[in-house]
Amino acid sequence: MTAQSDQTTANADRIIISVDAMGGDNGPSAVVAGIAKSADKNPQVGFILHGPEETLRPLVDKRDVLSGRVRYCDTPDVVSMEDKPSHVMRNGKGTSMWSALESVRNGEAQGAVSCGNTGALMALSVIRLRKLPGVNRPAIAILFPSTNPQNFNVMLDVGADIRADARDLLQYALMGASYARNGLNLKRPRIGLLNVGTEEHKGRSELKEAHGLIAQFTDQADFDFVGFVEGSDISGNKADVIVTDGFTGNVAIKTGEGTASLIGALLRQAFEYSILSRLASVLAISSLDRLKKRIDPRRVNGGVFLGLNGTVVKSHGSADATGVSAAVKLAFKLAQSGFAERLAARVASTVELTQDAVELADPVPEHQKEGQA
Amino acid sequence: MTAQSDQTTANADRIIISVDAMGGDNGPSAVVAGIAKSADKNPQVGFILHGPEETLRPLVDKRDVLSGRVRYCDTPDVVSMEDKPSHVMRNGKGTSMWSALESVRNGEAQGAVSCGNTGALMALSVIRLRKLPGVNRPAIAILFPSTNPQNFNVMLDVGADIRADARDLLQYALMGASYARNGLNLKRPRIGLLNVGTEEHKGRSELKEAHGLIAQFTDQADFDFVGFVEGSDISGNKADVIVTDGFTGNVAIKTGEGTASLIGALLRQAFEYSILSRLASVLAISSLDRLKKRIDPRRVNGGVFLGLNGTVVKSHGSADATGVSAAVKLAFKLAQSGFAERLAARVASTVELTQDAVELADPVPEHQKEGQA
Repeated sequence: MTAQSDQTTANADRIIISVDAMGGDNGPSAVVAGIAKSADKNPQVGFILHGPEETLRPLVDKRDVLSGRVRYCDTPDVVSMEDKPSHVMRNGKGTSMWSALESVRNGEAQGAVSCGNTGALMALSVIRLRKLPGVNRPAIAILFPSTNPQNFNVMLDVGADIRADARDLLQYALMGASYARNGLNLKRPRIGLLNVGTEEHKGRSELKEAHGLIAQFTDQADFDFVGFVEGSDISGNKADVIVTDGFTGNVAIKTGEGTASLIGALLRQAFEYSILSRLASVLAISSLDRLKKRIDPRRVNGGVFLGLNGTVVKSHGSADATGVSAAVKLAFKLAQSGFAERLAARVASTVELTQDAVELADPVPEHQKEGQA
Repeated sequence: MTAQSDQTTANADRIIISVDAMGGDNGPSAVVAGIAKSADKNPQVGFILHGPEETLRPLVDKRDVLSGRVRYCDTPDVVSMEDKPSHVMRNGKGTSMWSALESVRNGEAQGAVSCGNTGALMALSVIRLRKLPGVNRPAIAILFPSTNPQNFNVMLDVGADIRADARDLLQYALMGASYARNGLNLKRPRIGLLNVGTEEHKGRSELKEAHGLIAQFTDQADFDFVGFVEGSDISGNKADVIVTDGFTGNVAIKTGEGTASLIGALLRQAFEYSILSRLASVLAISSLDRLKKRIDPRRVNGGVFLGLNGTVVKSHGSADATGVSAAVKLAFKLAQSGFAERLAARVASTVELTQDAVELADPVPEHQKEGQA
């Protein structure tokens, strides 16, 4: 499956993002509107668009800004939100999602973006791009609005895997630190391990073990470890990277989203209460718009898959043009900074140390060590 | 440890709430201010106050409304926030927390309230009040602001135990339904099981098992089961009771609190931005106050311990007078409705059915069944 070139030469100096045009809740028109938005803002970005070409071409042709910046990869099938990852892994070869990853795998694109089924995208990413050596479970990292100077914390994993043992959590800390360094320009990110309390005796056993492991890596991996943090610290200024398993992380981001939208709804109600409050709301529009812009999930749309050979950004399924454009921007920024290579180098440099640390924390019987040596 | 009577006769017709005056972040003065607030609003409430009498009496004497409505139970020791539950279980006999539970145990009070260390309070509650027959793990239930007609959803467990198996989750569903019926006046509450997606194949194995168990009880226990719900539904209108393990539930409520306080801080910033926005904020004050009141965690302060012989309300450690008063109100309301007895009856009526359901879901070998019979 090689992308059919339209005007390849024009794209020569551009960073190419591979975009799965199908599978989002708002269909390919939202995706094409999103990449048009990105193309308008950023002359350095080009696209390979995956999906049925007869559907996509008319949408692209309507937008002058995309002229000469899109290559098509004609794929008949679509992964639906209901498809089980295991099914897609076996039967997904003709889908736009599979094809979008293929362009990263064969080096034609420097990153992939999809609004589709998260589980299927992660499963396909693992089998097509492969995990980095030393990474057991890849993770999805997102940016969560916070009171930090950089306005966001990184949180991972938010749903790649519902389980994580102590060693996985250590890998998440290392990968999250790399992401914070490249994505948020933090020199020495502060790592926090999510738990139900900050006291060291609290929580599940794998968390206590991970606490010990992560603490050993602060110098080699160039981060600070602030120890256990709580749910309230996800939006706080105590840590820059929140490390947790994918079940807890997924519930936490959705709880945060739900709370924000509840407050938004109540705010509207409150302002509709009386004539005076309606007047106030008119005067307050620009203030409220500033607030909305600051926490608008569409503007930081994109979960990044960490721990793979290549950059994959999962956009929200319900993303509109603004959301898709934010996901493209993130993929572009990471490609431009050489993030995938840096992360791979960082993980490689710690693989042996990780092994040592795990053995220190959980000693292997002597005879087994001899066998390994 | 029997409460020393001041003016017992005056309290004869009142519902007596046993209050641990110590161990909160704001000390006994906040607790006394809180019970004074309750006493002022509700002529039917009386108190047994636990802590060093020489500290408490001057605080109480300053408030006329408490005259004749407080009995003292002089206890020298205090459980601190740092004390490990296991330590308190062995050495806690002289503490105000132990004593506060004792008044419920011996029938002198119809409910207990404490702002102290949650882990210690739960551990002491289990050893002093004992679990209801058929309950394996007691749970802490809280009210979470939502878009429901009743303005709140019940969520449990939010931190009694970091683990829960399928059978525990079923018990939480039964207890949560009882609480929603008595605490929120819902005839047929809708139960949702918290997961990372709504599809039946998603999530951990104990969740899939619990899904099957809970579905079997909709008729006997008089609730609707809406199946899996996500983090965003905690503040939504899809379910009235959100069932989860104590680790996930604890992270979720703290994430919700953190998100709400982030938005509050950003709202203030947004309104301070310009002269126009400051003017808007003056006009908007009453709207914002309405919003604040609606989601103010102090006004629904109180985690209820479910699954014990007696009602215990855990107030937030940092509760001020308003928060303590809300916790007292909740304990009073539950005592007045005979909640503890109703819950016990409900659990008792389902113990056998639960056993049958579990056996159906996970058959016990025949020879073991014979041994049990």
